[in-house]
Amino acid sequence: MNYKVGVIMGSDSDLPVLQDACDVLEEFQIPYEVDIVSAHRTPEKMYQYAQEAKNRGIKVIIAGAGGAAHLPGMVASLTELPVIGVPIKTRSLSGMDSLYSIVQMPAGVPVATVAINGAKNAALLAARMIGSYEERVSQALNDYQEQNRQKVLEKGQELQKIGHEQYLKRKEES
Amino acid sequence: MNYKVGVIMGSDSDLPVLQDACDVLEEFQIPYEVDIVSAHRTPEKMYQYAQEAKNRGIKVIIAGAGGAAHLPGMVASLTELPVIGVPIKTRSLSGMDSLYSIVQMPAGVPVATVAINGAKNAALLAARMIGSYEERVSQALNDYQEQNRQKVLEKGQELQKIGHEQYLKRKEES
Amino acid sequence: MNYKVGVIMGSDSDLPVLQDACDVLEEFQIPYEVDIVSAHRTPEKMYQYAQEAKNRGIKVIIAGAGGAAHLPGMVASLTELPVIGVPIKTRSLSGMDSLYSIVQMPAGVPVATVAINGAKNAALLAARMIGSYEERVSQALNDYQEQNRQKVLEKGQELQKIGHEQYLKRKEES
Amino acid sequence: MNYKVGVIMGSDSDLPVLQDACDVLEEFQIPYEVDIVSAHRTPEKMYQYAQEAKNRGIKVIIAGAGGAAHLPGMVASLTELPVIGVPIKTRSLSGMDSLYSIVQMPAGVPVATVAINGAKNAALLAARMIGSYEERVSQALNDYQEQNRQKVLEKGQELQKIGHEQYLKRKEES
Amino acid sequence: MNYKVGVIMGSDSDLPVLQDACDVLEEFQIPYEVDIVSAHRTPEKMYQYAQEAKNRGIKVIIAGAGGAAHLPGMVASLTELPVIGVPIKTRSLSGMDSLYSIVQMPAGVPVATVAINGAKNAALLAARMIGSYEERVSQALNDYQEQNRQKVLEKGQELQKIGHEQYLKRKEES
Amino acid sequence: MNYKVGVIMGSDSDLPVLQDACDVLEEFQIPYEVDIVSAHRTPEKMYQYAQEAKNRGIKVIIAGAGGAAHLPGMVASLTELPVIGVPIKTRSLSGMDSLYSIVQMPAGVPVATVAINGAKNAALLAARMIGSYEERVSQALNDYQEQNRQKVLEKGQELQKIGHEQYLKRKEES
Amino acid sequence: MNYKVGVIMGSDSDLPVLQDACDVLEEFQIPYEVDIVSAHRTPEKMYQYAQEAKNRGIKVIIAGAGGAAHLPGMVASLTELPVIGVPIKTRSLSGMDSLYSIVQMPAGVPVATVAINGAKNAALLAARMIGSYEERVSQALNDYQEQNRQKVLEKGQELQKIGHEQYLKRKEES
Amino acid sequence: MNYKVGVIMGSDSDLPVLQDACDVLEEFQIPYEVDIVSAHRTPEKMYQYAQEAKNRGIKVIIAGAGGAAHLPGMVASLTELPVIGVPIKTRSLSGMDSLYSIVQMPAGVPVATVAINGAKNAALLAARMIGSYEERVSQALNDYQEQNRQKVLEKGQELQKIGHEQYLKRKEES
Repeated sequence: MNYKVGVIMGSDSDLPVLQDACDVLEEFQIPYEVDIVSAHRTPEKMYQYAQEAKNRGIKVIIAGAGGAAHLPGMVASLTELPVIGVPIKTRSLSGMDSLYSIVQMPAGVPVATVAINGAKNAALLAARMIGSYEERVSQALNDYQEQNRQKVLEKGQELQKIGHEQYLKRKEES
Repeated sequence: MNYKVGVIMGSDSDLPVLQDACDVLEEFQIPYEVDIVSAHRTPEKMYQYAQEAKNRGIKVIIAGAGGAAHLPGMVASLTELPVIGVPIKTRSLSGMDSLYSIVQMPAGVPVATVAINGAKNAALLAARMIGSYEERVSQALNDYQEQNRQKVLEKGQELQKIGHEQYLKRKEES
Repeated sequence: MNYKVGVIMGSDSDLPVLQDACDVLEEFQIPYEVDIVSAHRTPEKMYQYAQEAKNRGIKVIIAGAGGAAHLPGMVASLTELPVIGVPIKTRSLSGMDSLYSIVQMPAGVPVATVAINGAKNAALLAARMIGSYEERVSQALNDYQEQNRQKVLEKGQELQKIGHEQYLKRKEES
Repeated sequence: MNYKVGVIMGSDSDLPVLQDACDVLEEFQIPYEVDIVSAHRTPEKMYQYAQEAKNRGIKVIIAGAGGAAHLPGMVASLTELPVIGVPIKTRSLSGMDSLYSIVQMPAGVPVATVAINGAKNAALLAARMIGSYEERVSQALNDYQEQNRQKVLEKGQELQKIGHEQYLKRKEES
Repeated sequence: MNYKVGVIMGSDSDLPVLQDACDVLEEFQIPYEVDIVSAHRTPEKMYQYAQEAKNRGIKVIIAGAGGAAHLPGMVASLTELPVIGVPIKTRSLSGMDSLYSIVQMPAGVPVATVAINGAKNAALLAARMIGSYEERVSQALNDYQEQNRQKVLEKGQELQKIGHEQYLKRKEES
Repeated sequence: MNYKVGVIMGSDSDLPVLQDACDVLEEFQIPYEVDIVSAHRTPEKMYQYAQEAKNRGIKVIIAGAGGAAHLPGMVASLTELPVIGVPIKTRSLSGMDSLYSIVQMPAGVPVATVAINGAKNAALLAARMIGSYEERVSQALNDYQEQNRQKVLEKGQELQKIGHEQYLKRKEES
Repeated sequence: MNYKVGVIMGSDSDLPVLQDACDVLEEFQIPYEVDIVSAHRTPEKMYQYAQEAKNRGIKVIIAGAGGAAHLPGMVASLTELPVIGVPIKTRSLSGMDSLYSIVQMPAGVPVATVAINGAKNAALLAARMIGSYEERVSQALNDYQEQNRQKVLEKGQELQKIGHEQYLKRKEES
Repeated sequence: MNYKVGVIMGSDSDLPVLQDACDVLEEFQIPYEVDIVSAHRTPEKMYQYAQEAKNRGIKVIIAGAGGAAHLPGMVASLTELPVIGVPIKTRSLSGMDSLYSIVQMPAGVPVATVAINGAKNAALLAARMIGSYEERVSQALNDYQEQNRQKVLEKGQELQKIGHEQYLKRKEES
């Protein structure tokens, strides 16, 4: 099959975060592959993965990593594809280490960084990149934003109707 | 003309940083437009800009802003295009405020964040997005990376040949 | 009815924090309205809300938001009313991202920022603004501060009388 | 004379920052007074100032302070007036100490905090508070925002017309 | 009775931390008093407390406060006694706000700051100040340090004898 | 016996972290000793330990400490051996205080710092130092890295085969 | 001579900061000695200094150090005297490393920490400790605070009389 | 020639920092090589360098890098040699990004991290590692520490003799 997005992570302990990206890609019916590629423990596989991705038809790579997070930047240095980095929250520094290790790339090799644990947005960003060239995806994004808009509007109307106390009570019950 | 990248910034004081993006786009012969669009001082223009960009043929928007930097995120909420945010360095918090205001977007609306003052990488990231679908740009990126590689290799050879003291002296003289 | 304070938030997940503001406004008998207005998911509603608030009689807007928190600043850019921003605590950066995104506004568009999760103080600040012009509210604030003073004095007397061990034991029991 | 805004600061070394507030208040023709009131070196004067301000007709107090900045919070605890705190940039911690000392007030005593060195916005915030009740000031704020909008629009048009290189050259020359 | 150390705190929610100070003072048989004195809610009491402390025989004041922690600095500005500040850990900023608000005092008014939640060390520091002039306390400090030394030496010997696995098992059991 | 690595810590509360170092050293069959040596409570023992270590045959010292962590740096100043510092995570500042206290050593006295709570890496680093001169250890490191590589490769294959949902389910069950 | 305060620092590069402490002690006519004592380069001298200080009549030790600043804490662990730590501002971390290394001492060994580069306050704090037992110094502190009060009052009066523009002009000229 | 230490850096802009390492290695007569090896621009060279270093006789690698600093960690993942990472100070985040990117390595691949811009200590650390097995180097380290000790002692004596004012004057003149 021809995958458009490659989702990789440095360790399977990052999978609970990265699955949000997979779910969004499925929702948008964008074919993707998912793999564990560690910059530090499987550097050769990382090289191969990054260098072959374009030829296999991949359009965007999503790479999640935590701590001294080198995967997104190293992959970006080995491909011409856009690479989206997801900083994983860490125990001692709450992901600030991951964020700095990913976003502060030197001039020459960019990584498109999203929020700490922001795997969902990573997938939406990939969809936007694809949507710039594939109208079906662009339309799906449009629908998605419209649905979000509707949900917020409805919640706002309910809040105004029943007041904040009732609203909070119902929310806790559900 | 049909611009592919829109470069916008919140204030003309951000232009010395954003011009790096313009220079790269020119180098890659990617048609771009540049404008000042302030989220806080020209919110209506920002709305219009974000909502019309796709129809005007724009594929990616690069938005630079500093401090409580709302431009990239607000533009992203008003378009389906991918938006690249450039956090501008600030006087008191060195751009950490800009970085957090841009990268920590809530789930649903992604901004592709680059390093503080990383306008050059913003343009390279835009080129990568375009290059996923336009072979000429992909090839140009490949050449660019190859040139960078060569430059570093040559510098390394010179350093090894003449030693670090000579190297530093020559560098200061040039 | 003629509301004096508008309490808005970017998501209903912020409501458990913002309800503190509502409770204080009720205690001070200041008529208020509460709504969900998302800068990123309902930008049009935000525009409309901000631009009509003054004509509907609103004197102060309280806006809570977390992460890349754009709601308070964007609303402030669309109205002449004073806007109070409540930075919501976040999971990875503990609300430091929310704080910077709200307080570091560029010159020209101010947001009156309170502490992280400081919704109670946001309402008290709104009451102070109103109290500068409406004597009843000013008097209520005076009473409120006097009551707080009394409570602290009484606690101090009890602590001195029974000692810190007894005091802590009683506190845990109640 | 009947002053509406009291501008105070902990030291005359803060005056170069606070003068921005004075200039804005003059521009908006809002009568103001300016004084040095140190929480740590003149605590009695601070008490007296805070407790008499309302009776002298003051509607808002702007207080600037740096480092362990106690002036805004202490004044707020001694008056029912709204107090706007301006965190002054410091040498070692760049004003992050001032910001935390001002914004993180405990529940019960609010301080309306603006950006580090944000004295201009402090004055605009005071004007907004007054403008909620005095139509002349509200109108002046409206004009001010319109002028800012025009300036940004004109700059944007010039930038688009002459390109970023010419624009930067002209800017440097002027 | 003639108290030598005054232990005060901004709120009774700080008591679980400050009781460590009380316990140490008791252990060292240094007479102390404990009270709740809020800079923001009982400013008059704070004034009176600070200004009378020396005449009542107090040699050192220990003041604990959290967030925008103004109590230690304000008390220090109203007395010539040495004031020890205990930054209380806070929910969103972990006490970094308390630390900066206490330690970054402007030149002229010092506060002797200890670690976040470091109430025990605050009492030991008070004991050291007293011990410089009262030999009994100095001797007690000497004994205290000797006991600590012994405890660590014994633990080290046990660890070496039974190995880290046994040691950890025993520790968990006890 | 002739120990090659000395593992010391400031308090037995650091042992749950440091035991990771012991386990790795055992796995690599590198003889080590473990002791509690507090810079602040047993300074004399620390002096003696540091000054005798080399003569006892120790090749590397691993020192863990938290907060104002002085043990690694002080030991380094008293020996010519390489000292590896392990910053222990702390309650209020998450180990950022420990990290800075260990890594920011002045020129002249180096400490090889690893990640917060990174005791496992401390032992691996010690093994690398020894491995530079002892081939058996170098070979063991090589095997270790190869095993890690294999584990990651296998996990990646499983993930690709069964998909992320199945993978996560199995992981939770095990 | 019988010195009451010992001023020590880790390097003579800290002397430009520490001289503020010396100047204050001279102003208060408190006999002091000043020396360079490096925790990392002269550990034996540090031991000796700390252990003999009390017997030589020293009442308080002021210790300045930067980066991984171990001097104040180590000295405190070797004496029963109160030790005041002055965190020296550093090039890369602005003294935040020095601050954490000094203030975050573990329970058992307190260091009285002042602001980054706060040598003046260190001396005033030493004076306060001495003043608790020596009336002459207490009186001198009282006079000092009164003088500071007068200076601020006079500046405030001048500012109110001539306005902020004149005031700033005069200040720049002087 | 048979080099024992490999000094590499990501860019020749890091050379002014790394030359401190070279100077120390020369002083200690430890043969070393120096090269530019960029993780992001010459990833293949980095692979080759790391994988061949051991066979070429290298005992320790010193790697300096700034921002999202991946060089030290990536090299460590490709060799069994000990790798010392030097975080280079950066313009916007002062090297905190470099520090986190280097020190926060995941378990399995250690990097011996020194202070920001701490190239001198990196070389001293390399010397210590070598000195554990080569007596000449160990002796040289011993002499070096003794010389440092003497210098500090002499400075201390001079300071005590001539007083801090004279001392500072002389220092400025020299």
